[in-house]
Amino acid sequence: MKEAIKTVNRSGTPAQETAWNNYVEDFRHAGHDTVDWVARYLATVAELPVQAKVKPGELLDSLPASAPERGESYAAILSDFDRLIMPAVTQWNHPRFFAYFACTGSTPAVLGEMLAAALNTNGLHWKTSPAVAELEQRTLDWLRQWMGMPEGWFGIVYDTASTTSLHAIVCAREMAVPQARREGNPPGLVLYTSEQSHSSIEKGAIAVGIGQNNVRKVPVDSAFRLRPEALAMMIEQDKAAGNRPFCVVATVGTTSTTSIDPVPQIADIAEKHGLWLHVDAAYAGAAAIVPEHRHIFAGVERAHSLVVNAHKWLLTPIDLSAFYTRRPDILRRAFSLAAEYLQPQGDPRAHDLMDYGVPLGHRFRALKLWYVMRYFGRERIEAMLRSHIQWAQKLAALVDADPRFERVAPTPLSVVCFRFKGTDDQNKAILDKVNASERFFLAHTVLNGKVVLRLAIGNLATTWKDVQEAWNLIQECA
Amino acid sequence: MKEAIKTVNRSGTPAQETAWNNYVEDFRHAGHDTVDWVARYLATVAELPVQAKVKPGELLDSLPASAPERGESYAAILSDFDRLIMPAVTQWNHPRFFAYFACTGSTPAVLGEMLAAALNTNGLHWKTSPAVAELEQRTLDWLRQWMGMPEGWFGIVYDTASTTSLHAIVCAREMAVPQARREGNPPGLVLYTSEQSHSSIEKGAIAVGIGQNNVRKVPVDSAFRLRPEALAMMIEQDKAAGNRPFCVVATVGTTSTTSIDPVPQIADIAEKHGLWLHVDAAYAGAAAIVPEHRHIFAGVERAHSLVVNAHKWLLTPIDLSAFYTRRPDILRRAFSLAAEYLQPQGDPRAHDLMDYGVPLGHRFRALKLWYVMRYFGRERIEAMLRSHIQWAQKLAALVDADPRFERVAPTPLSVVCFRFKGTDDQNKAILDKVNASERFFLAHTVLNGKVVLRLAIGNLATTWKDVQEAWNLIQECA
Repeated sequence: MKEAIKTVNRSGTPAQETAWNNYVEDFRHAGHDTVDWVARYLATVAELPVQAKVKPGELLDSLPASAPERGESYAAILSDFDRLIMPAVTQWNHPRFFAYFACTGSTPAVLGEMLAAALNTNGLHWKTSPAVAELEQRTLDWLRQWMGMPEGWFGIVYDTASTTSLHAIVCAREMAVPQARREGNPPGLVLYTSEQSHSSIEKGAIAVGIGQNNVRKVPVDSAFRLRPEALAMMIEQDKAAGNRPFCVVATVGTTSTTSIDPVPQIADIAEKHGLWLHVDAAYAGAAAIVPEHRHIFAGVERAHSLVVNAHKWLLTPIDLSAFYTRRPDILRRAFSLAAEYLQPQGDPRAHDLMDYGVPLGHRFRALKLWYVMRYFGRERIEAMLRSHIQWAQKLAALVDADPRFERVAPTPLSVVCFRFKGTDDQNKAILDKVNASERFFLAHTVLNGKVVLRLAIGNLATTWKDVQEAWNLIQECA
Repeated sequence: MKEAIKTVNRSGTPAQETAWNNYVEDFRHAGHDTVDWVARYLATVAELPVQAKVKPGELLDSLPASAPERGESYAAILSDFDRLIMPAVTQWNHPRFFAYFACTGSTPAVLGEMLAAALNTNGLHWKTSPAVAELEQRTLDWLRQWMGMPEGWFGIVYDTASTTSLHAIVCAREMAVPQARREGNPPGLVLYTSEQSHSSIEKGAIAVGIGQNNVRKVPVDSAFRLRPEALAMMIEQDKAAGNRPFCVVATVGTTSTTSIDPVPQIADIAEKHGLWLHVDAAYAGAAAIVPEHRHIFAGVERAHSLVVNAHKWLLTPIDLSAFYTRRPDILRRAFSLAAEYLQPQGDPRAHDLMDYGVPLGHRFRALKLWYVMRYFGRERIEAMLRSHIQWAQKLAALVDADPRFERVAPTPLSVVCFRFKGTDDQNKAILDKVNASERFFLAHTVLNGKVVLRLAIGNLATTWKDVQEAWNLIQECA
């Protein structure tokens, strides 16, 4: 068969037809085997150790130092995948993965990814694949409606929220100092975000040449929410010092505690000073789908941009980060290299996605989101999100009822932050014991200088029993 | 089944087991159907129109304005995919797709993507999934060896070459003005690249706050290669004017004509002035695998960084852009937010990929590249690349032999640039006719102010007959 493939690339003869057919049939067989592998994996993932147990370099050393000269069979590849690679995989798709933000690579998305890879179509321009631009526009508009956001916001997909927030910061600069596009950054640009915001905001500001010193970390209140009066004061101070405030990043659902910044008050301040307001709702945006939790989006309609990751709590495997903006004109002005006078020539319905961001190539990521939204439907997704939040509340109540433990942050969504009333080392020891059981994976965070245990619920296969057993083990280890 | 899934998320009872099993079995059946769909697609793709024929908004309007409330069956989704979406897909995986850079979503990569989506594992830290960091390191080292590059270069994967080159520009800034990380860009930073280089270099410079005015477009020679003496002069002029040259981007395989900049001479100049040298070999890097074409990499070992896209000519579906640098220390310094004194604590073999770039999350992209390299092996890939280049030479000879046409650039690799000896409108008319046949898709470029036809060979299924028939049709249309 492999020899035959070689022939494919050398002639257009009947032998080529046969070779191509063999290539396709080889895929068909291996494809069925791989689907069965995935089905078996999903049926048994709950029994696997959650965390990989390999040592640094162990997988690297187990793989040949050089790639094969001659092609190998699918059976050999899948066998090595199972034997060598799987032990080095931490199982993010495990129902007892409670670290970071728990998430799900759901089955409809797996099929969407398979089709996207097989088509390998690229939506850099509208005409290079209309389906990419238009399915992205449609699915992101569906998601906008689910989250109760107003009409008219433009949506586009990037890889991760870090990349997305970098785009938001560039938009903010474009609005404040349009000449920066041609001349480079002027000195004195200042960006504001809370001391609990995600590191990607600071990293984005570094990358786009604003500088770490010009990222103001606004203090938070006792519930880890940005303090608007502190923001207002810092902006006034910067203005008095001759600096140029240009961007505020609010977080709806911070990484450590899922705290929700007071967006309405922040929007007041941003509007007063003419700053771009970006909302990082990478994790928590999904919760706005649930009517009784939609209040977390209060004020978001006044922001200039918003990021929500489908690959966090929306059943979509990494990567699919949705960027929404009500100023697509500024996004396009910041990233398009087409001359201004060329713009009106195009059909207003045909978006060239390369004009709306750094990446030129544009993968057909919307296909997996479309699969997810159609397969589960809004009701099912809402039910899952509601359950996760309810279980977090139940766990919070159990923590509160155990006098040896204390909750160290409110639990507005599906993440519970708590600690054993003891030393940092004791808390670390509990975490290590729980993780060493191989049955759970929790991470820690640091709040007010103290080590804090953090249990994040977000996987489709998780049940209340999983959460309960994690808590039982934590109590045992305490 | 759908009701059952709902149950999964509400209890840990026997009913949950059944529901989960149903969910997995539903996937198994749909997975087999989807594999069969892909096999049928690949067996018949050559008969499909290459370009989508829809009008702007046509797919958008054919999809419901809102997502479904209740979940739908896989059969319904796949049927709509076939009926509504496929007509809007331009077939990049078609053997007669000769536009842009022709490429391949090969079958082993489809399986790699399926597995990556099913695991949904995320290598932001080494410990969050050792397999992601280590398989990436291993496969990129395999590719490094195939391309004949020296040992010791560090490799990492980003989404697209545009993103990768942005990282290179930030590295260049970090080397030249390390204080920029804290203080923001100083004025006067200048980047050099040829007037034939890819637009992403200019866009990257805009995004990171250098400014379009500070991107010097160095003139090219008659073969569209950067002129080193012009580069040297521009740098001297900038220095004399008090500006601060910091980065040169050379291209091995430009987008329009695949011209190859004289990297050794450019490296001399970069070294003399202490500038970071980045080599954009996004398309052409693959050709270095073929021994008789490896000379295109002359001097590349003296560069600081290099980008090669596996998703261009290396059988890997979008996206997988490989970034190599011999200064990973600078890459890490530019993008890590960990305090310096924390760095030695980690195991030197355990790379936290989040410290080496903008994106925090890190998809398991290496898995598809591993599948591709093992399934095809070096020999098969070399043979394909060699064939594509040979066919381009054969086509170039046919063009040269037809007095009505002229070749307007050398053909060092697999792309042929030529024009009908007539007006731009006549050339455009030929292109429109060829594309209107639905059997081929070619793009044009503009060289020396004239419209030029451009035929790019790069798909695994392409045969010499496909190229020949394209040429026959072009002659007919002329």
